[in-house]
Amino acid sequence: MAKTNPGRFFEDYTVGEVIDHAVPRTVSGGERALYHALYPMRHALYSSDEFARSCGLPAAPIDDLAAFHIVFGKTVPDVSLNAVANLGYAEGRWLKPVWPGDTIRSQSEVIGLKQNSNGRTGVVYVRSRGLNQRGETVMEYARWVMLRKRNLDAPAPEAVIPDLKNSLAPEDLVIPEGLDFTSYDFTLAGEKHRLSDYEIGETIDHVDGVTIEEAEHMMATRLWQNTSKVHFDVTARPDQRLIYGGHVISMARALSFNGLANAQVIAGLNGGAHANPCLAGNTVKAWSEVLDKAETSAPGVGAIRLRLVATKGGAPFELKGPDGKYLPDVLLDLDYWALMPV
Amino acid sequence: MAKTNPGRFFEDYTVGEVIDHAVPRTVSGGERALYHALYPMRHALYSSDEFARSCGLPAAPIDDLAAFHIVFGKTVPDVSLNAVANLGYAEGRWLKPVWPGDTIRSQSEVIGLKQNSNGRTGVVYVRSRGLNQRGETVMEYARWVMLRKRNLDAPAPEAVIPDLKNSLAPEDLVIPEGLDFTSYDFTLAGEKHRLSDYEIGETIDHVDGVTIEEAEHMMATRLWQNTSKVHFDVTARPDQRLIYGGHVISMARALSFNGLANAQVIAGLNGGAHANPCLAGNTVKAWSEVLDKAETSAPGVGAIRLRLVATKGGAPFELKGPDGKYLPDVLLDLDYWALMPV
Amino acid sequence: MAKTNPGRFFEDYTVGEVIDHAVPRTVSGGERALYHALYPMRHALYSSDEFARSCGLPAAPIDDLAAFHIVFGKTVPDVSLNAVANLGYAEGRWLKPVWPGDTIRSQSEVIGLKQNSNGRTGVVYVRSRGLNQRGETVMEYARWVMLRKRNLDAPAPEAVIPDLKNSLAPEDLVIPEGLDFTSYDFTLAGEKHRLSDYEIGETIDHVDGVTIEEAEHMMATRLWQNTSKVHFDVTARPDQRLIYGGHVISMARALSFNGLANAQVIAGLNGGAHANPCLAGNTVKAWSEVLDKAETSAPGVGAIRLRLVATKGGAPFELKGPDGKYLPDVLLDLDYWALMPV
Repeated sequence: MAKTNPGRFFEDYTVGEVIDHAVPRTVSGGERALYHALYPMRHALYSSDEFARSCGLPAAPIDDLAAFHIVFGKTVPDVSLNAVANLGYAEGRWLKPVWPGDTIRSQSEVIGLKQNSNGRTGVVYVRSRGLNQRGETVMEYARWVMLRKRNLDAPAPEAVIPDLKNSLAPEDLVIPEGLDFTSYDFTLAGEKHRLSDYEIGETIDHVDGVTIEEAEHMMATRLWQNTSKVHFDVTARPDQRLIYGGHVISMARALSFNGLANAQVIAGLNGGAHANPCLAGNTVKAWSEVLDKAETSAPGVGAIRLRLVATKGGAPFELKGPDGKYLPDVLLDLDYWALMPV
Repeated sequence: MAKTNPGRFFEDYTVGEVIDHAVPRTVSGGERALYHALYPMRHALYSSDEFARSCGLPAAPIDDLAAFHIVFGKTVPDVSLNAVANLGYAEGRWLKPVWPGDTIRSQSEVIGLKQNSNGRTGVVYVRSRGLNQRGETVMEYARWVMLRKRNLDAPAPEAVIPDLKNSLAPEDLVIPEGLDFTSYDFTLAGEKHRLSDYEIGETIDHVDGVTIEEAEHMMATRLWQNTSKVHFDVTARPDQRLIYGGHVISMARALSFNGLANAQVIAGLNGGAHANPCLAGNTVKAWSEVLDKAETSAPGVGAIRLRLVATKGGAPFELKGPDGKYLPDVLLDLDYWALMPV
Repeated sequence: MAKTNPGRFFEDYTVGEVIDHAVPRTVSGGERALYHALYPMRHALYSSDEFARSCGLPAAPIDDLAAFHIVFGKTVPDVSLNAVANLGYAEGRWLKPVWPGDTIRSQSEVIGLKQNSNGRTGVVYVRSRGLNQRGETVMEYARWVMLRKRNLDAPAPEAVIPDLKNSLAPEDLVIPEGLDFTSYDFTLAGEKHRLSDYEIGETIDHVDGVTIEEAEHMMATRLWQNTSKVHFDVTARPDQRLIYGGHVISMARALSFNGLANAQVIAGLNGGAHANPCLAGNTVKAWSEVLDKAETSAPGVGAIRLRLVATKGGAPFELKGPDGKYLPDVLLDLDYWALMPV
């Protein structure tokens, strides 16, 4: 029997099954430096221990999306190695900051299954969690992917479609312990805009662009120990390597600093779609739309719900065509909650 | 009003104004590893804690030019986002080593202003400082850039041209506390040449070359949180991305190890010109000229003043044409003081 | 006299001479993060402090091949700057793990010399050692290279050909102090196969491939402070930059995780050949053959001897043509011992 990992197929999942994913990772300042070299990250809370302390944290955590990528990458060999499509995310929550020195592992529970009517593919829903060395959940999210069946004769499982929230409510968000924005230094953070300066419906063109190189997205994707062949092997697809969707998420989030510098902490992921593939040579730009605002129980800390759109061309603020489909230049449509000084 | 940073224009500066720049950064071994991966850095004092201790320091500091880039990068959004040209540097001094764990922020004072006769641009002179978490200045330098006016009708300010030294005197240099080269290990450092082996006027061809890739200069420039669009966005200029001048400085300095391995510590920056743009695909080589030598008060520590020239072709030791202009293959002409065993 | 390092030529070596190599290096989590970004490394013992502790070690060491590259890189300026060919390795042993915070330097002893019959080149045999800050040898290996003579009239030295083992015996291997695989977590490690699941003669196609970029191999090679021009300077050879052979070794080893995830620790290097040059754009794949198996004295720890072959095309398990020469798509043929749970 082959010793390499063939990945799992649709019929290999059972609702309620818990999968412990391999290769825990201890993070250090090395991961942070690389993350800040690969993306133009500038959020002060994640760049400066001193700034983080002035906001009530013991030190600067590892960037929230880096934590997400670390957790996500470990699920790939067990969840999406044979995925036909990554269909969606929901109920993503960051529950504890990840600190340099922490060791993160991942676990997924199968929360839904539905065979497609073609009999050849099905949708698997998982809830994935990142756990630190104390067994605390640092983040969690639901994700659903379309997988092929290996054996077309395998019986269709009973369809279970989980009840996932369209978006998290503000009270679902977990605020990092100690976070306090009452002494927030807007000068050091880079912008003066606080939550009250943003209006629901407001759109922001983040202006800056980054042209993506093969070496960069592969370094990022490897750092997260994501093993999907299509990101690394030019012979695995007809044209270019396909860039990990998470690379686009991090790039767009970093670009959104310019206009949203004070949306420091990512607390919730409501949903997201990788609208079109991103390839090396694309110049990624980003725009945001304010979807909602809310108070939180932490001192001086508000929540802002944002749509973050990454594009590889076209004009800002254009998302879908008259047919309701994403325009071809749209790469990402992400819906998330961030924490910001009120 | 747009929330993104439009940058400042010439009429937005006032002599005497102090600008606190955003996004402090805590550095770690991650920054060092990346710096040594991006440039062929081999100076032993910055590579080995043990070597640094044998020279009287508590550990290996972060490379002096990395410290410079960290300080410089923070000034870009406030000083040079709309720069037409980076005109010069002067009076650069490294005052305290930067150690892993330090948090660096930057501050600039406007020390001069002069509107150009065309009425459309002007020169802004700033003195920028990097400060660590104890408020100590780790380095400082003067820099002047040409900026456009946004409003051509804005009145010309009173011209103030700061009195900047053509070059630092040896007694202006600050020696890192404790530095002692009396037990210097020339074998571990990589070369046997001490200060007395160099003669004023001597030229050194550093022989080695590095062909530059887009991914590398972007990673470096992002690591320093330099936000200038032209370095990242291929659509921002007619041809290729323009490589951050500091990338060329670091590359040339690293190449100069071969012949100047013992010029360990950069203590002063007398001046520098980015003679021609550097683009990916260029093969950078370097040569040096010994401009001056001096004693210092630290045991076994001498100072050497060097011209460091980076090229992308042509023969070594050729700098300017008969017209007095830099030859087209010259990228950088830098004048600095380094510390070396006597 | 030129101050740059001209490298050594064949007649510059004497049997018994010990060369202390320059530029010690203190490693940190930065080196680990970069190593894991440049190669798809996933061996849990080197990724997670917690996993390493569950195997009796105090923390996760720096990857064994990263330690090898650090030691090797320092020898280049003194041993192989003028090498015509890197002929072979033997008797490579990892004697102590390298931990973040360790400072590594290298030393080589000339153990053999033989001028070639053409009178223009000769073979130099060295035994190189990496030493940590306590003077302990962390690894050692023999290597032989073909070097040009600078002076063709220099007399041929007495030929000394060292007696090197074809392969290390299992009892030659040094097990990291404390290593204990009796509580080994196969789930977190990523595969369930233990030593008893592998048969001598078994071959494993590691399936995954990585297309190599110029920026990546240069970053890796610089991180190891390897100064060989051909890796960096596109003008140094007629076609592309030549990729450091060690880049291929690390890439193949990382790819071999898929099928050999539990071959955690590299303990011995029996030999290796860089069969054909690797260039950017090549897609590297790997296959392994089980050459031998053995017990060790450490609890639960067995040894597996593996042939690791890297290719840039062709079919797996094809190595040499009818003429006994490596096929043109074979990049590397490595013979090593790894430690694995029994």
